[in-house]
Amino acid sequence: MNWQPNRASSISISKQIVQWMTDQIQQGEWTIGTKLPPQRKLALLLGVNRSTLQEAIDELKADGLLASRAGAATYVANDSWHVLMKQKEPDWQQYIESSIHKANYQTIQLINEFEQKESIIRLGTGELSPSLLPADGIQESLQHLALDGKMIGYSSPQGSFSLRQAICHYVKKRGIDTSPENICIVSGGLQALQLIALGLLKPGSVVFQHQFSYLNSLHLFQSFGVNLSNIPENTEPEELIKQISRKKQSILYTVPTLHNPTGATMTFEEKERLYHACETAQIPLIEDDVYADLVFGKTTPAMKSMDKSGQIIYIGSVSKTVSPGLRIGWVIASTPVIQRLADIKMQIDYGSSAISQRIVDYWLRSGMYEKHIEQLKHELKSRAALMEELLKMYFWHTATWAPSQGGFYSWLKFNKPIVTTELFMKLLKKNVLINPGYIYWPNDAYHIRLSFSYCSEADLRKGLNILAGEVNGL
Amino acid sequence: MNWQPNRASSISISKQIVQWMTDQIQQGEWTIGTKLPPQRKLALLLGVNRSTLQEAIDELKADGLLASRAGAATYVANDSWHVLMKQKEPDWQQYIESSIHKANYQTIQLINEFEQKESIIRLGTGELSPSLLPADGIQESLQHLALDGKMIGYSSPQGSFSLRQAICHYVKKRGIDTSPENICIVSGGLQALQLIALGLLKPGSVVFQHQFSYLNSLHLFQSFGVNLSNIPENTEPEELIKQISRKKQSILYTVPTLHNPTGATMTFEEKERLYHACETAQIPLIEDDVYADLVFGKTTPAMKSMDKSGQIIYIGSVSKTVSPGLRIGWVIASTPVIQRLADIKMQIDYGSSAISQRIVDYWLRSGMYEKHIEQLKHELKSRAALMEELLKMYFWHTATWAPSQGGFYSWLKFNKPIVTTELFMKLLKKNVLINPGYIYWPNDAYHIRLSFSYCSEADLRKGLNILAGEVNGL
Repeated sequence: MNWQPNRASSISISKQIVQWMTDQIQQGEWTIGTKLPPQRKLALLLGVNRSTLQEAIDELKADGLLASRAGAATYVANDSWHVLMKQKEPDWQQYIESSIHKANYQTIQLINEFEQKESIIRLGTGELSPSLLPADGIQESLQHLALDGKMIGYSSPQGSFSLRQAICHYVKKRGIDTSPENICIVSGGLQALQLIALGLLKPGSVVFQHQFSYLNSLHLFQSFGVNLSNIPENTEPEELIKQISRKKQSILYTVPTLHNPTGATMTFEEKERLYHACETAQIPLIEDDVYADLVFGKTTPAMKSMDKSGQIIYIGSVSKTVSPGLRIGWVIASTPVIQRLADIKMQIDYGSSAISQRIVDYWLRSGMYEKHIEQLKHELKSRAALMEELLKMYFWHTATWAPSQGGFYSWLKFNKPIVTTELFMKLLKKNVLINPGYIYWPNDAYHIRLSFSYCSEADLRKGLNILAGEVNGL
Repeated sequence: MNWQPNRASSISISKQIVQWMTDQIQQGEWTIGTKLPPQRKLALLLGVNRSTLQEAIDELKADGLLASRAGAATYVANDSWHVLMKQKEPDWQQYIESSIHKANYQTIQLINEFEQKESIIRLGTGELSPSLLPADGIQESLQHLALDGKMIGYSSPQGSFSLRQAICHYVKKRGIDTSPENICIVSGGLQALQLIALGLLKPGSVVFQHQFSYLNSLHLFQSFGVNLSNIPENTEPEELIKQISRKKQSILYTVPTLHNPTGATMTFEEKERLYHACETAQIPLIEDDVYADLVFGKTTPAMKSMDKSGQIIYIGSVSKTVSPGLRIGWVIASTPVIQRLADIKMQIDYGSSAISQRIVDYWLRSGMYEKHIEQLKHELKSRAALMEELLKMYFWHTATWAPSQGGFYSWLKFNKPIVTTELFMKLLKKNVLINPGYIYWPNDAYHIRLSFSYCSEADLRKGLNILAGEVNGL
C-alpha cells in the first residue's frame, strides 16, 4: 500500500481517498470481504488525519461500497460490485440546484404553467390575443418570400442585410438615423438583454432601473452576478446622477414609452433630462422601445434620436406588434457594441431564424406592417376603453389608475397593501391569473398589472368580476 | 469640509474620493480655479493616506477635472465643466474586455469574417452549399402551414407539441423510444449546449470530450468557468472510468456518429462500452447526433437507445440536413433535465421561431424530410468521391486520411507538423479558407478538416490545388 494523496491537487484529500478506494474495489485489488487495516494505522500509512480518513470511509459506507459491524474492522461490502455496476439515474437534482442559471421565480413558473390551460382567464398576460395576431396575413405573405439557398443558410453575424436596411428605414419615424452596420438582429428583446449581460457586463456590474421594472421578473442579469438597483419613483435627474455617477461598467435600463408594467410614457423633455443625466454620470443606457408603435395618441421621438455619443443601446421588436412567434427583434448601437453582441450571438445560437427574418423584412417593405399596426391600435383602443369602463365600475373606491395611453396594460394601485402571494393563489384557484406588482418590485403589495390585450371581452368582464369579489372585501 | 470616506463600502477609498470631488465640482461647490488644500493637510482632514489621496488626484487630473502647475497648489481645472458636460462616448472597449463572455478565437473570427466574401474558396466550411439546400421545397411547403393565431403566439416552454410528437416518431429509426414530455425544442444544437452549460453545470464542472472536438472551437463552456478536458485518442473505456470517475457535476460530450471534425463513427459495440463506462463512472453523457442522417452506409442505433437510467442527453437538429437558417434542433432527456432546460430557454429567448417549428413539423410529417435526405446523401456521396480522388492525386505522399463514411468532412493528417497559423494566413491571402486542426485541439499541427459539402466542384479542384502547392513543399 504505497499510495498517498496528492496535496497539490485541487481535489480534497478525502475525495482522493474515496476515488482511490473505489478504484481498488473496481479493479479487483480489494475483493469482497477484504478487511481494511485499523483506521489509526491506515491514516498513518496514507499520511492523512484520522478525521479525513473517517470522512472518506463514511462516504463509501453511505454509497454501499464499504461496510462494518460495531466494533469490528471495516471491509469491502458484499454487494459493492453490484453497487458499482447498477444502473443509477444521475443525481440531476443536484446538477440543477447548483448550476449557473437561477430558476424562474415561483410565481413566474406558475404563470407560465397555468397559461397553458384552456380554462384559465389570463388577466395579466403581456401579449396579443391570438385573435389580434395577423395569422392570415403572415400565411399570405409566405408565398412572396422568394427563398433561395443563400437565404436559408447560416446567417451573417449581424443578421440579414436586407432586413437591417428595412429597419433603418422603419426607425426613421422614431427619429433615429442609423445604418445597417449599427444593427444586430436578435431573437426578441429578451435575447438582446442576454447578449448585453454576457457581452458588456461583468459580475458586480449594476443595472439601474425604475422601481417597478420588467427586469425584476427575470433572473437574466442576476444569474451572471450582475446586480439590479431600483431607482425610486420620481427621482430627479440631478439626484440620479449622484446615485449612479461613475459606477464602473454599469448601465441604466429604461422603457420610456409605454413602460412595462406601469404603462407610463415620458415626455420628450423627460427623455432629454434622463439622457443628459446618464451622459453626465457617464453611464450608458438601454432604451427598450418595443411598445413604441402602440401609442394611441401622438408619439415623440425615441431617446436614441438624441444620442450623439453612442451612449444608447436601443432595442426594438415585432413581438408586441406582429407576432411573438417570429422571435425577431433588433439592437441599434455604436459599432463596437454591435460587433460584440453579434459575436456573442454567433457563439450562443448562430443567429435567428432566416425565415422569420425574411417575413419581417417583407412586412416592413411591403407596407403590411404599417397597415396592420393601424388596425391593431384601433382594436387595442376599444379594448382599453372597455377596461376603463370595468375598472370604474369595480374599483372606483378601492384603487386608482391612469387612463391607458396605449399598449397592453392598466396599472392598478390599491389603497391598501392587499396584493400578496395569498391573493395570487386564491385567484388561481378560481382560474384567474394576474401579474402581481411584487414580481416587478419585490417589496410591493399595492399593484396589479392588468392587461387588456389578451382576454376576450367576456373573459375580461368575468375575470375582473372575480378579482373585485376577492379584493374589495379585503 | 466634513466629508470622510466610508470604510465599510465595497468601493475603494480612492474611488470614493474621486466621486466626492467630482460631486463638489458638479454641484458648483468648488468653482473653477478653486485651490485644494495642501495634500498633507487634505489627507489629514479626510483621514486617508497621502498615497491614496494622490491616486485620486492623479485620476482627476487625467480626466481633466483638476490641474496643477509645478510646485503650486492643485486647483479645479478651467475646463472642468466642459469635461463634465461634453458628449463622451462610453468606454465600450473596457466594457467589452472585462465582460462575462469570451470573444471568439481569432482564427474563428477570421473564418466568420472571410466566409462573407464572395471570392473566397471555403474548403473548411461545415455546412451544406446553398445549392444543396432545399429552398424551393421549403418555399413550396410554406403554403401548407395553415397558421393560426395560437400557433404564432408565444410558444410553450418545451416548444410546439405537434413538432415534439413528430420528433418522437422520427427518432424511432435511431432506436429511441420517447414521448413529447421528454423533448425540448431549441434553436439548433449550439443552443442546446448553452442551455446545458447554464442549467446543469457550474464553475469548476468538467466537460470531458475526445481530443479533437468541435467544443474546443467554442468559448461556450469556458465563458461560464466550466472546464474542458480532452480524452486522448484511443483511450480504453476502463482507463476512461479511472479518469472521469465521480467528478462531481461533470459530463462527457461525444459525437458517436460522423464525429466533428474527424468524421469517425463508432460501432455499436464501441457505443455500448462508452455508455457503460460513463454509467460506471456516474458521469452523464451528451450525445450529439446531428450528422446521423448523413451516414452513407448502414446506420447503427443511437447511444440514447441503450439509455435505461436517464444518463444521456441527446441532441438532434435539422441544421445539417434541411437548413441551418431554420434554427431548429431538439434535446431528448429525462424529465427533470428537460423541464430545467425549457425553463432556462424561456428565460433567455422565450422559445424558438414558431414558423420554423411549423416548417420542420410539416417536413417530418409529410415525408418531404425523408425524400430530401435520400437526394442529399446521393449528392454528398458523389462529392465525397470527388474529394477522395483529389486527395489521392494531391496528398498521397504527404498525408493520410480515412475514406468518408458520410457527412461533410475529410480529416487529413499530414506526415509533418505543418498546419500552423502561418499556413492558415498564407492560404487566406490566396483566398482559400481552411479549418486547421488546432481549432479542435490547441496543440495540433498535423490536421486539416476539409469539407466536401460546401464548395462547388470547380472550387474544390482549385482550392485543393492551391493547398497542395502550399503544403507539399514544406
